[in-house]
Amino acid sequence: MNRRKFLRGSALLTGALTLNHFDLFGRDQEEKLSFRSKKAKNIIFMISDGMSNGTLSMANLYSKNIFGREMNWMNLYLEKKATRALMDTASASSIVTDSAAASSSFGGGFRVNNGALNVGPNGEQHLPIWQKFKKKGKKAGCVTTVTITHATPAGFCINSAKRSAEPDIAEMYAEFGFDVMMGGGDEFFNPEKRKDKKDVYASYKAKGYQILKDGSGLKNMDTSKPVLGVFNSGALPYSIDRKNTSEQNNTPTLAEMAKAAIDQMKDHKEGFVLQVEAGKVDWAAHANDISALIHDQLAFDEAIKTVMDFAIKDGNTLVIITTDHGNANPGTIYGADATKNFNSIADYQFTNEYLLNNIHDDFNIQQVKDWIFVNNHFSLSDDEANHLLNFYKGLEKDEEGLYNYKKLPYKAFSDIQKKHNNVGWISMDHSGDYVELAMYGPGSELLKPFVKNTDLHYLMLKAAEVENKF
Amino acid sequence: MNRRKFLRGSALLTGALTLNHFDLFGRDQEEKLSFRSKKAKNIIFMISDGMSNGTLSMANLYSKNIFGREMNWMNLYLEKKATRALMDTASASSIVTDSAAASSSFGGGFRVNNGALNVGPNGEQHLPIWQKFKKKGKKAGCVTTVTITHATPAGFCINSAKRSAEPDIAEMYAEFGFDVMMGGGDEFFNPEKRKDKKDVYASYKAKGYQILKDGSGLKNMDTSKPVLGVFNSGALPYSIDRKNTSEQNNTPTLAEMAKAAIDQMKDHKEGFVLQVEAGKVDWAAHANDISALIHDQLAFDEAIKTVMDFAIKDGNTLVIITTDHGNANPGTIYGADATKNFNSIADYQFTNEYLLNNIHDDFNIQQVKDWIFVNNHFSLSDDEANHLLNFYKGLEKDEEGLYNYKKLPYKAFSDIQKKHNNVGWISMDHSGDYVELAMYGPGSELLKPFVKNTDLHYLMLKAAEVENKF
Repeated sequence: MNRRKFLRGSALLTGALTLNHFDLFGRDQEEKLSFRSKKAKNIIFMISDGMSNGTLSMANLYSKNIFGREMNWMNLYLEKKATRALMDTASASSIVTDSAAASSSFGGGFRVNNGALNVGPNGEQHLPIWQKFKKKGKKAGCVTTVTITHATPAGFCINSAKRSAEPDIAEMYAEFGFDVMMGGGDEFFNPEKRKDKKDVYASYKAKGYQILKDGSGLKNMDTSKPVLGVFNSGALPYSIDRKNTSEQNNTPTLAEMAKAAIDQMKDHKEGFVLQVEAGKVDWAAHANDISALIHDQLAFDEAIKTVMDFAIKDGNTLVIITTDHGNANPGTIYGADATKNFNSIADYQFTNEYLLNNIHDDFNIQQVKDWIFVNNHFSLSDDEANHLLNFYKGLEKDEEGLYNYKKLPYKAFSDIQKKHNNVGWISMDHSGDYVELAMYGPGSELLKPFVKNTDLHYLMLKAAEVENKF
Repeated sequence: MNRRKFLRGSALLTGALTLNHFDLFGRDQEEKLSFRSKKAKNIIFMISDGMSNGTLSMANLYSKNIFGREMNWMNLYLEKKATRALMDTASASSIVTDSAAASSSFGGGFRVNNGALNVGPNGEQHLPIWQKFKKKGKKAGCVTTVTITHATPAGFCINSAKRSAEPDIAEMYAEFGFDVMMGGGDEFFNPEKRKDKKDVYASYKAKGYQILKDGSGLKNMDTSKPVLGVFNSGALPYSIDRKNTSEQNNTPTLAEMAKAAIDQMKDHKEGFVLQVEAGKVDWAAHANDISALIHDQLAFDEAIKTVMDFAIKDGNTLVIITTDHGNANPGTIYGADATKNFNSIADYQFTNEYLLNNIHDDFNIQQVKDWIFVNNHFSLSDDEANHLLNFYKGLEKDEEGLYNYKKLPYKAFSDIQKKHNNVGWISMDHSGDYVELAMYGPGSELLKPFVKNTDLHYLMLKAAEVENKF
């Protein structure tokens, strides 16, 4: 039965129910019930990419132990604002998805093979959900901390047999007229960096886009124009390095990008849809880089606050907060000093990426030890320092890894850190664990407690009362 | 406000509400609402000890891929029967709890230091919840796959500064007159095995208990007498070994013990409380033993069916299904053959414990390879076989580990298996991850979406309408 029609036809009864619910269940149930009579005008889909259950747990543990407060995500539960589910994240080709297939499940409503973006095993194309909503008159956008052409935003926006086609994806977005696209990826737009020397920015300008290049530009954004914000050559810096290195702190935060995107789209009569991705949580897990992981998860949590502040005030916005898959299943490990050791992560001044990038083959053992001590506040043994140094001198086999472009010894260093911070990892790649999902606002009442990633596609359409005929 | 009083005072209104809820929300909400007018006469608290999120995920993945069906636990969600929460499992002394402190949180309502059973950091004693319910006239019992004197059952039943005092705990249970206690642990009851040569069974017999020693005995249980069932010297065998080794299959399953305990207690006028623990899920995680882990989680799932069949029919039983903490955060790892490799676990005929127990120092490399191939269906390299063999020949340092009594090379073997089954582990010990919790029945409406382990103590009392004054 059409929910609105039913409720219109029984207004008096509904009134009575609402009143009594308030008494029976308390305000939270009252609020959930009130959403039942509404459609979602806006949808904000938040993804902490590659967030294992342990990542969420550790970020909240860190927030409580170091800052003395629960994260915004957990407060949604403590205040009974959100509905929860467990989500099965598999792809068509594997029990363990990649981000392209995962985003395609949400974005296209069908599981595809790992590596593909809304293109099925037999070449079939699935219309991406942000295109569906554009066709229905809504504004649509994505903001991310990785390249804006990366798998997760791309999976809501375009079709591509290969996720690696980022230079093509950069061109495609303009074609469909997405309203706000922000993240990194200058290398795919800038004629000086592209192989084909094409000026992709020019094609956006021709369509009336304003191009933003840094945080200052973002602050002065003209909300009357569509926006392309490209804030770095590749992905944006990790949050903790962004804060602690002067050359990077004019890069906007995820929360700032989300705020700007909402500002640009919120007054649109037909509503808007926005994806907010903490893409580098996944990269941090791939690198077993604990300070990168926790601080980027906390930056995602700041974005949750920005989004929820808007959604609560607005009352017509469905907010979905989840991840696309687990990664590395990190967790705190039992031991006499587990708490003290875990809390020592607050002493880490930079990511492991930054630390390891700043060790060079002409360092001696003492220099390696000093560098780690200054920035991680623990002492390496001579053997450990020598082991690390051997990677730079070509005496140990280079580490590989999805985003380990410089072949840094991430695993070797994380194994050393483990003794000091009690954090372990099962691997440097995605996991097939079921993941956490929270929803708030109109449409959240449609959520079942155990869902497949593809279910969210249809839930969004239903919440927005958009018939799935295109 | 007292729920029952409120509802008694508004019977007509409640009738109208119930009808309309059915239309608005469907049957599941109707069912949840109907529980609001009831108190929990019975409580069944089910614990898969040391179950990380990845353990639950992998067991269901295995169930779907190999048997073609969702687990009973997931079906509770798919059928919208259960309420869910995320639970913080910390202890007083650490972000990562042990099972004694964890059970004390549920059992005593206070966090205590790791290792203690309902004895606080300053020696304060917290009355265990099964004693509280006994005082209110209910029957109370525990069934487990480890020793019945182990931390998890003990934490609901007794006070002890040290969980290791299992011989004393064996004596204590009789003192409080618990109605059904079943599991392993003959070593703590049998005069021939106890250091003090005390016949603890005799003290139970003197109190009118019947003593059960095996599955046949359990089948012929006299429901009119209190029961002590001790089915092995130490813990019970792992599920897959129980099935596949003839000498162990007269040991009852967890589901059979749960069924017998319910049968013994269900007709008691004042109701009953029962703990059902899959204790060896934790041991399997400590040993990184994947076939032990999955099959014991599935045996727990069979017990869920037994319990739910009773609870649904009964209508007055609160069922809590959870774990006390994560352990080893196992998970499936991304890779081209992830699905095929994970599914190959179905070829494993025994636990790693069984396999490694049956390798001896007089084996040659080929014998090791043959033994693993026959039982795990993959081929070790000569180097791998030799590496394993070296542990038996004293050429590699013995592995330690909480329940690794025979110093078997669990980690070495699990590292080899990982290449073939794509399952990884962060460690061989507990983790501090937030964990999964499901509830069904009267009182489940009290559950908040994010809870502390201690909250469950007070929730149980409230659900049963037992004032916390003792």
